[in-house]
Amino acid sequence: MSLTPLRQVFPWRIPFAYCLLALFLASCQTTTSTSEERPPNIVIIFADDMGYGDLGTYGNPTIRTPQLDQMAEEGLKFFQFYTGASVCTPSRAALLTGRLPIRYGMVSDRIRVLFPFSYKGLPEEEITLAEALKAQNYATGIVGKWHLGHLPPYLPLKNGFDSFYGLPYSNDMIPTPDAKWAPPRKYPPLPLMDGDKVLETNPDQRLLTKKYTEKAIDFIEEHKNEPFFLYMPHSFPHVPLFASSDFEGKSSRGLYGDVVEELDWSVGEVLKALKARGLAENTLVIFTSDNGPWLTEKQEGGSAGLLHQGKGSTWEGGMREPMIAWWPDKIAPGTTQSLATTMDIYATAVSLAGGSLPTDREMDGVDLSPLFNDPTAEIRDEVIYYLGAQVFAIRKGPWKMHLKTLNPYIGEQAVAHDPPLLYQLEHDPSERFNLAENHPEVIAELKAILAQHQSGVKPVQSVLDDIDESYFE
Amino acid sequence: MSLTPLRQVFPWRIPFAYCLLALFLASCQTTTSTSEERPPNIVIIFADDMGYGDLGTYGNPTIRTPQLDQMAEEGLKFFQFYTGASVCTPSRAALLTGRLPIRYGMVSDRIRVLFPFSYKGLPEEEITLAEALKAQNYATGIVGKWHLGHLPPYLPLKNGFDSFYGLPYSNDMIPTPDAKWAPPRKYPPLPLMDGDKVLETNPDQRLLTKKYTEKAIDFIEEHKNEPFFLYMPHSFPHVPLFASSDFEGKSSRGLYGDVVEELDWSVGEVLKALKARGLAENTLVIFTSDNGPWLTEKQEGGSAGLLHQGKGSTWEGGMREPMIAWWPDKIAPGTTQSLATTMDIYATAVSLAGGSLPTDREMDGVDLSPLFNDPTAEIRDEVIYYLGAQVFAIRKGPWKMHLKTLNPYIGEQAVAHDPPLLYQLEHDPSERFNLAENHPEVIAELKAILAQHQSGVKPVQSVLDDIDESYFE
Repeated sequence: MSLTPLRQVFPWRIPFAYCLLALFLASCQTTTSTSEERPPNIVIIFADDMGYGDLGTYGNPTIRTPQLDQMAEEGLKFFQFYTGASVCTPSRAALLTGRLPIRYGMVSDRIRVLFPFSYKGLPEEEITLAEALKAQNYATGIVGKWHLGHLPPYLPLKNGFDSFYGLPYSNDMIPTPDAKWAPPRKYPPLPLMDGDKVLETNPDQRLLTKKYTEKAIDFIEEHKNEPFFLYMPHSFPHVPLFASSDFEGKSSRGLYGDVVEELDWSVGEVLKALKARGLAENTLVIFTSDNGPWLTEKQEGGSAGLLHQGKGSTWEGGMREPMIAWWPDKIAPGTTQSLATTMDIYATAVSLAGGSLPTDREMDGVDLSPLFNDPTAEIRDEVIYYLGAQVFAIRKGPWKMHLKTLNPYIGEQAVAHDPPLLYQLEHDPSERFNLAENHPEVIAELKAILAQHQSGVKPVQSVLDDIDESYFE
Repeated sequence: MSLTPLRQVFPWRIPFAYCLLALFLASCQTTTSTSEERPPNIVIIFADDMGYGDLGTYGNPTIRTPQLDQMAEEGLKFFQFYTGASVCTPSRAALLTGRLPIRYGMVSDRIRVLFPFSYKGLPEEEITLAEALKAQNYATGIVGKWHLGHLPPYLPLKNGFDSFYGLPYSNDMIPTPDAKWAPPRKYPPLPLMDGDKVLETNPDQRLLTKKYTEKAIDFIEEHKNEPFFLYMPHSFPHVPLFASSDFEGKSSRGLYGDVVEELDWSVGEVLKALKARGLAENTLVIFTSDNGPWLTEKQEGGSAGLLHQGKGSTWEGGMREPMIAWWPDKIAPGTTQSLATTMDIYATAVSLAGGSLPTDREMDGVDLSPLFNDPTAEIRDEVIYYLGAQVFAIRKGPWKMHLKTLNPYIGEQAVAHDPPLLYQLEHDPSERFNLAENHPEVIAELKAILAQHQSGVKPVQSVLDDIDESYFE
């Protein structure tokens, strides 16, 4: 564009035209620098054992979550978002690999997670999201709970993270008498780590959320001038519950509410840190949880809202989670009913970073970003519900078929269903009305899809069963 | 204020000072005209059988409610809001009288509502909210379902309403074979009324929500220059479910979703009509429902979310409802956990209109308006749960004591509990953990409060049992 013709046409408007031109060029430059020169930052905030019904924006009556409610108003709130498993370790593995845990042995027929006496961790061949983003020149950090292997070869710094601050596994894996397990297990002291180094053991858990928040903001400050991936898997609201003195005793929901309200505060602080540094418009922030509420913990466990059952089950309450995707100017505020999973976060982040998914292995995620502008887009049609090494259920569209179910987390045997149970989840979100007799054709279709899925899954040895069993005695 | 000294002090700023003065006077005038000359309009939108979990903003996964979600973002969303009863007739009576139905006989030991073969209706001595606002020179209109007496002495025009468009009772009170009742009841044709006149019988119910919406907007247009009270009790999502062709088949939740999504559209149209006429800042709009979801209707009934049970019970799912209060500039956007009831709407509206509550009778409502600026205000501490003529439960603060419970709506006897059941609702919203053994002192306190309440309730004859019993045979 030349100014001369403009001056001839609108001679009296030149100062205004200059302004417009300047604004236009400025906006071009910004667009270029964010979308081409610098790919967006990725921040994943991952709660632990939070249920579908634990936030105000999902109907919780007595837990105040103003920051997450606001994040949902400004971002995209998901109603049918699934984790890759209904317990910690495989769920985190699915998120960080974009693949179902069955594909690399992060499963156990005993519905296990990794324990302090496990011998293994995430197999080295897996390409974590941190490794994938590192390849795109991202700075990568994890602040919080790892739980993909606490022995040296499996720690975060061996898995693509530049920095790690937090716990190697769950906050209930602590020495007796604090441990919840009966009979008590002989756990070592719980380490709080910085990189590969143990900072202290059995840290004061009341300070964990605050410390994670400070470290997350430090990470953002440190890397504000380069693309970064911040993975923030909180230790709470997993039991034992602890909140700082700013939050303890404050929630009308009791200690569980205190803990969730502190997480809500933490999310607000992270978003504030991004905004204060002018990074919000170039950062995709995801908030979700690893699995449903631990219902056997009673008042110290959360709520799955209208969904049935919780952690450790393949009913909806075990694997469907609150999920909010926030990215000012890039994600249109709204809600979506589209199916999506944590494995899709992997595919989305890699794509946004300008990378591509590995082609030498089965990937289980799809790119979520079509939903950012069109919340009615259909990005996937199927969800497979594993419990340990077995498929317990499968969903296609609104239909979910249960081959097996297991109700409480501990101490109940799985029940096989033949014929399977069949629910129309969109009409019947609470899984109350078994329609198997009315729809044999749907059962047949789901069985066929499942057979096809299973033919693509190669058997691998269980990593989780590679463990010193004597500790369980 | 005189302009002369101002001109002497800031002679060069006169034009700006004039502007400021003009703005100041203009704002004074607006304030005066809204808060003194013209009290606010009151609009109450009352759904029928909608549950706590049926809106997106309360966590429903497959019913899209963008208008109500937006209304909640702009207004005050309640999490602990109760109706006066868990079935239609007494719930509406409580809303419109500000008093518990037991006080004037709108109760039955058989957990009844009014039927087309009932002989009576709301007693003449009751002062409806329409009558109370009429006394403050409000124009008053009802568009929707009345259900407080269909015989001439009991219709809306005899109860303070200037106009009535809608059904005299529930939309399932229709002739066989459409009626849901077994054995079939010999109902007369269902009348659609305008004032005291029957416009047509057995109207096409697919058009009801649309017609109500048009009539509501007509009422707003007609009365835009005077204070008005618009009561809009929708006929849906009570079964049988009907939606217009614009909505039928559109919701992924099925017909129930279609119907709720059309109600959501209707709410949006009403708010739009208020905004278009410059009335929004002078209108308090309330959205809530008469009782919980009719769970025995299966997929055609709604969801109470994380609350237990539904319509016809005194578990939380029967009487706790979605509730949104919207009034731009007057109600700060937010959420509240404070206890409130439909009877408080009566007290609030009368107070906003400049009236005062009757002093010759027991009133059961309190003014909600302290919550409009301070959502943590405590306006009431107690809720009494009647089922028919009996107190089944009582709540004080977080504690709820059940003396009796009744689960499904039809065909199950009430169960008495001695000792009573005791739940801490703020920690345990789903009423899972009976703490009666741990807190005998709370049970004693609740029993004392209840005894005091009951000593103030004079026995009156049941209006609902004044009925031609032969129709039930």
